[in-house]
Amino acid sequence: MTALLPFSITREDRVTSARAASLTTPHGVVETPAFMPVGTCGTVKGVAGWELDRLGPQMVLANTYHLVLRPGVERMIRLGGIHRLMGWGGPILTDSGGYQVFSLAARRVLDEDGVVFQSHVDGSAHSFSPESVVDAQVDFGVDVAMVLDDCLPFPAEPRSVGPSVDRTIRWAQRALIRAEERREAGGWAGGLFAIQQGSVNPDIRRRCSDHLASMAFDGYAIGGLAVGEPTEVLHEAVDFSVPMLPAQRPRYLMGVGYPEDLLHAVACGVDLFDCVLPTRSARTGKVFTSRGEVVIKNARWADDDSPLDPGCGCPTCARYSKGALRHFFISKEATSVVLLTLHNLYYFLSLMRGAREAIMAGRYGEYRERMQSNRELGPGE
Amino acid sequence: MTALLPFSITREDRVTSARAASLTTPHGVVETPAFMPVGTCGTVKGVAGWELDRLGPQMVLANTYHLVLRPGVERMIRLGGIHRLMGWGGPILTDSGGYQVFSLAARRVLDEDGVVFQSHVDGSAHSFSPESVVDAQVDFGVDVAMVLDDCLPFPAEPRSVGPSVDRTIRWAQRALIRAEERREAGGWAGGLFAIQQGSVNPDIRRRCSDHLASMAFDGYAIGGLAVGEPTEVLHEAVDFSVPMLPAQRPRYLMGVGYPEDLLHAVACGVDLFDCVLPTRSARTGKVFTSRGEVVIKNARWADDDSPLDPGCGCPTCARYSKGALRHFFISKEATSVVLLTLHNLYYFLSLMRGAREAIMAGRYGEYRERMQSNRELGPGE
Repeated sequence: MTALLPFSITREDRVTSARAASLTTPHGVVETPAFMPVGTCGTVKGVAGWELDRLGPQMVLANTYHLVLRPGVERMIRLGGIHRLMGWGGPILTDSGGYQVFSLAARRVLDEDGVVFQSHVDGSAHSFSPESVVDAQVDFGVDVAMVLDDCLPFPAEPRSVGPSVDRTIRWAQRALIRAEERREAGGWAGGLFAIQQGSVNPDIRRRCSDHLASMAFDGYAIGGLAVGEPTEVLHEAVDFSVPMLPAQRPRYLMGVGYPEDLLHAVACGVDLFDCVLPTRSARTGKVFTSRGEVVIKNARWADDDSPLDPGCGCPTCARYSKGALRHFFISKEATSVVLLTLHNLYYFLSLMRGAREAIMAGRYGEYRERMQSNRELGPGE
Repeated sequence: MTALLPFSITREDRVTSARAASLTTPHGVVETPAFMPVGTCGTVKGVAGWELDRLGPQMVLANTYHLVLRPGVERMIRLGGIHRLMGWGGPILTDSGGYQVFSLAARRVLDEDGVVFQSHVDGSAHSFSPESVVDAQVDFGVDVAMVLDDCLPFPAEPRSVGPSVDRTIRWAQRALIRAEERREAGGWAGGLFAIQQGSVNPDIRRRCSDHLASMAFDGYAIGGLAVGEPTEVLHEAVDFSVPMLPAQRPRYLMGVGYPEDLLHAVACGVDLFDCVLPTRSARTGKVFTSRGEVVIKNARWADDDSPLDPGCGCPTCARYSKGALRHFFISKEATSVVLLTLHNLYYFLSLMRGAREAIMAGRYGEYRERMQSNRELGPGE
């Protein structure tokens, strides 16, 4: 068996289960807790590679489903791999595309071997198997690949959860075998993360985790959350799911979430996050700040010459007023996407940087409390 | 009478009429020949202020018509003026909006006093007079304001050209009086440029120029070209129009154009240009290079790992392949607008920087010849 990506826990909080750790990947060290900006189709929407460099995310996420459909695996290889395509030299994790096959693709037919589906882009036929999805990610040259999982909607039909999770476990095992073959064949030194499923059923999540933990994955993700359930349900599921995952490996909560969700999950011992929230919200004019959310189109900001967040160190806040940003947004200027996306990403990355620093200083509980109560104040005039 | 913006001609080409000069404005020196990126509504579409800094344009253009409609003069003042709004501390010139009133606004009623029209944004009623347009630009805090002119379509009804130009001359005089009043009142130290009109009629353009030259404008523009006429007609009109303008003041060819048009006009003695071509083309995937135009969506670039222009020093070419840029463009990623806009602007700015250097070195003819013959080669594989 090949060696796992090195992962070391630097500091554990005494009061909460929060921890600061480092995951070493082929393209650099990922210091956690960390939030991964989402670059679904090979670019964080509106963000040039040099802006990403300046933001300094620990790792960036792209999506296997989208990239297999376009540009495709062969073309990605000819274009020099995913780092060259994205114009980003740091660590890249790809989602397996399981979630997208189940939410975006048409005419999906699932069996034990995998899933056959039609592209939502052009209707072309494709198939994913646990092995083909590993191969695609290895061919892309990612730092962390994810296993193909069987994703259920929320709320899930209770009787379907058990069989679905059993399949996810079998698929994970097949994926791991393929990843080890590819690592041994040389040319790829990335890691593979498994995904715990089980809807909101603790017993099934436990069974899933136990099976996955018996195999040598580089990390363990919690999947199937942030799919429409209320916040309390999400937090409760995080509460019971995280401790089920091996403590000595990175823990990744997929698709989460709001700042409060991140702060909660960090306290539970989650290391990695990804979410479209900061980037997608920027495009609809919703801005995250230390004092809560700003809806930039609101008339109250029209004459406001102050920055989005007076304490923010992002380039947007250094140069633009809320009034100017509102003007760009309502004028549908592309610059609005650029400026608001950079601000929102800066906010999420800072929040996690602050969390790491607080954990290192042994004061995570305080930090979480302060961040949350500030956000409850609401943005001032 | 108040002092004009300092303008000094550093070097004149011996063979052509090209010249290198410097115009001093309240926000910095504009070294010419110079191309002004267009930021119609207060931002160059997709370009953050710090990217503009890095591109280093000599001056940036915004549009009075659009900015009067939104955010409006009063709001612009409350938001700290046009430099603060745009996030750009260098020289800003605003077009008067004459052209936009005639091309975009609805239910336009023109009389000697000015023009009453409806906003194309929300149908609200507005009026422009020569004085109100100067006031708006002064209130914005621009470095160079343009007079309101009476714009004719191409081809113009021959009988309408004379009376229209007479009105443009009378309006220019009123604008100049208002600008001098505003400068004397203090708080504004910008310049006012007049606009020569006259369609493609040399006699009427001559008459217009002579009248405008008898008044103390800071610069003189050629308007009413690049409105749909063939290239030969444009070049011929530039040939006869430029020498009519005072040689000791900056000469600005409005709305032009293609690289070849710029190189031609520089040879005729034009100092300033603006055009939406590099920015608008970027959004439709048309890319300017030293070897001619690249249509990025073309399948021939799909597997091309080389940059748009191997000799280009822009940030996009430093990091992204044509294949990646094609992928972003066909995936409709906002990053495509950002990357292609920066490249195109870099190309236009470099072309004019190179023209200035060639003039300074006494080799403009050679430079123009080399740039044009390279572009005729076409982009290689």
